[in-house]
Amino acid sequence: MEAKETITLTSDFGLKDPYAAEMKGVILTINPYAVIVDITHDIEKFNIQMGAFTLASAAPYFPKGTVHLAVVDPGVGTKRRAIIIQTKQAYFVGPDNGLLILAAENQEITHTYQLTNRKFMLPETSSTFHGRDVFAPAAAYIEKGIKPEKLGPEIFDPVKPEFAQIKHENDSIIGRVLDVDSFGNIITNINKSAITKNSEVINVKILNCQLKLRLKKTYGETKPNEPLALIGSHGFLEIALNRGSAAKKYQATVGMEIAVSPA
Amino acid sequence: MEAKETITLTSDFGLKDPYAAEMKGVILTINPYAVIVDITHDIEKFNIQMGAFTLASAAPYFPKGTVHLAVVDPGVGTKRRAIIIQTKQAYFVGPDNGLLILAAENQEITHTYQLTNRKFMLPETSSTFHGRDVFAPAAAYIEKGIKPEKLGPEIFDPVKPEFAQIKHENDSIIGRVLDVDSFGNIITNINKSAITKNSEVINVKILNCQLKLRLKKTYGETKPNEPLALIGSHGFLEIALNRGSAAKKYQATVGMEIAVSPA
Amino acid sequence: MEAKETITLTSDFGLKDPYAAEMKGVILTINPYAVIVDITHDIEKFNIQMGAFTLASAAPYFPKGTVHLAVVDPGVGTKRRAIIIQTKQAYFVGPDNGLLILAAENQEITHTYQLTNRKFMLPETSSTFHGRDVFAPAAAYIEKGIKPEKLGPEIFDPVKPEFAQIKHENDSIIGRVLDVDSFGNIITNINKSAITKNSEVINVKILNCQLKLRLKKTYGETKPNEPLALIGSHGFLEIALNRGSAAKKYQATVGMEIAVSPA
Repeated sequence: MEAKETITLTSDFGLKDPYAAEMKGVILTINPYAVIVDITHDIEKFNIQMGAFTLASAAPYFPKGTVHLAVVDPGVGTKRRAIIIQTKQAYFVGPDNGLLILAAENQEITHTYQLTNRKFMLPETSSTFHGRDVFAPAAAYIEKGIKPEKLGPEIFDPVKPEFAQIKHENDSIIGRVLDVDSFGNIITNINKSAITKNSEVINVKILNCQLKLRLKKTYGETKPNEPLALIGSHGFLEIALNRGSAAKKYQATVGMEIAVSPA
Repeated sequence: MEAKETITLTSDFGLKDPYAAEMKGVILTINPYAVIVDITHDIEKFNIQMGAFTLASAAPYFPKGTVHLAVVDPGVGTKRRAIIIQTKQAYFVGPDNGLLILAAENQEITHTYQLTNRKFMLPETSSTFHGRDVFAPAAAYIEKGIKPEKLGPEIFDPVKPEFAQIKHENDSIIGRVLDVDSFGNIITNINKSAITKNSEVINVKILNCQLKLRLKKTYGETKPNEPLALIGSHGFLEIALNRGSAAKKYQATVGMEIAVSPA
Repeated sequence: MEAKETITLTSDFGLKDPYAAEMKGVILTINPYAVIVDITHDIEKFNIQMGAFTLASAAPYFPKGTVHLAVVDPGVGTKRRAIIIQTKQAYFVGPDNGLLILAAENQEITHTYQLTNRKFMLPETSSTFHGRDVFAPAAAYIEKGIKPEKLGPEIFDPVKPEFAQIKHENDSIIGRVLDVDSFGNIITNINKSAITKNSEVINVKILNCQLKLRLKKTYGETKPNEPLALIGSHGFLEIALNRGSAAKKYQATVGMEIAVSPA
């Protein structure tokens, strides 16, 4: 029986163009038994941070041995490296621009290799679409059982992104908006442990808005259109409106600073 | 050989966020042989009626034994129950808010159980995302062969929605707009049997528009931009424009009343 | 072991409505082992040219034996024929309106059959949704091993589209815009061989804009927002802006004429 391991796909290709499908065709040509799952192809064009956050959110829920293929790749065709990161839980294949590192670091990285072995790429490698020509074959061969060290030399300096850093100033934690989900919930990079030891009520500053919010367990615990804070299903602090868009109300956008202190 | 049964997913999560993918990861972790098919994740946020209609439209076309998982769940984290409905044809897993009932009733309900057994949920159950933490595991275990009665106690009073009701006034049938599809076709909740015994020409009243329409078999039977009535592929009366948007022309929106009488 | 062959889907149904899912349900009911991959369901409504181009772009990357099912079908319910085209590489199932021909001709057509045998359709065939009632069953049966000649009589005159034709005037090549991708890259129907024998610098005329462009290998070889020409991953000439939308800047839309000459 063939192993049934999953390949996930994350990209900024959208679903209108055939790019995501071409990657799937390449994977199925190499390994007809691959189980392919889209995480999303609607990452904002070239937004590496959004891609990194989305991948980090979804990856923990996939089976051990999953190969995560991600492509948000403004530097395609330049000298940026193509890499595979092996963790204790999974594999991450994509460009070396920080896209993979957030998800991979959560799973304890064991090795990182540069993809240089042309044997495991398409015969004709375009300079504009490594998702199909380099990353998809690598993912398919890894899922088929090829050892990652066959794909190229080990490297020790993968690019690390600046996002996901938190500063402490006096009693405030200064983080940033990691994501605005499609409900309009503002997801910050401030995690559970930084918050809950302080208080059940917190001061939150977004742009010029100063909010005093009670930490709730569910969106439904306030009246419609009232703001609340909660630890979302990803383990990060969220600012939300019950049945409304907090991002719209507070004009929050990805990357914006957000300061939190005990009330 | 593993059983090859399908799990369908219907939600209002969209495809930009990783939520749908997280449900798939949970399912594949429990059952790597699951065949997962999206019905749609683009249900309008919190629009239970639209979710119920979409699920009811698609469910009849899936194989016997399919597990239909649906999440349009404004009450997540409150006291609304989580349920599984067993029918003669399939299983329906989701919140007890009317989302499942339209599809399930079309297939003759045999039993309904409340999902309470924590053994068949994720170890840490968030209060904001039961799709991933409660419904996805339930669906995966059912597809693996766990009996639905293991998931919790039988219940006899699932929530029934008000939508999908038809009134008769004199010789008129008063129904409502169930859906506007992406072609702009107006799909009503008035079904085949209510219509065709009367006449080949019908009077239709939408808002202040009074239309006299001939029942056609295909969209192409009128000139471009002319209105027509037909029994759509779901078995419901549709008002359409050949190659145009009837919903735009007649300002029809979901839930709006529509009156039909023989001409 | 069941054969693991792929069925791809291309349509203008969108992902909001249940139509794509209904086709998948029909396929899985006939063949639970089918591996179904979406190419896209976001073809512009009734835009046969866009569908044909998208299918032609993606099809070469799929395994031998793949069944490509495509539905952009403004003439559904009229006398337009339903067909299956067999090539040396794959099968193409859909309406006989030019949608399949571009992709199929790239793979050397061996036979074309009209789908007339009701045994391989759904028992109740609607006049509005042949994707589900005629094409999906045909694709599923073909993948299961039914010979295409069982589906209906051979035909020799499939509809051929006018798009994808190139004119030569003096030293200019006059083609047209085949597609604008979601990055805003302008993809023409002028292919590699027509271009590269001339020069590394080309004159391009779009609307009233006269551009002198160097043929590059990657989008990243110019400064941000500067225009460039390149042979894209599909083998066609593209006009692009590094990190910007060329289509927006030059007001290019699908079908527009584009003239190219050596500089």
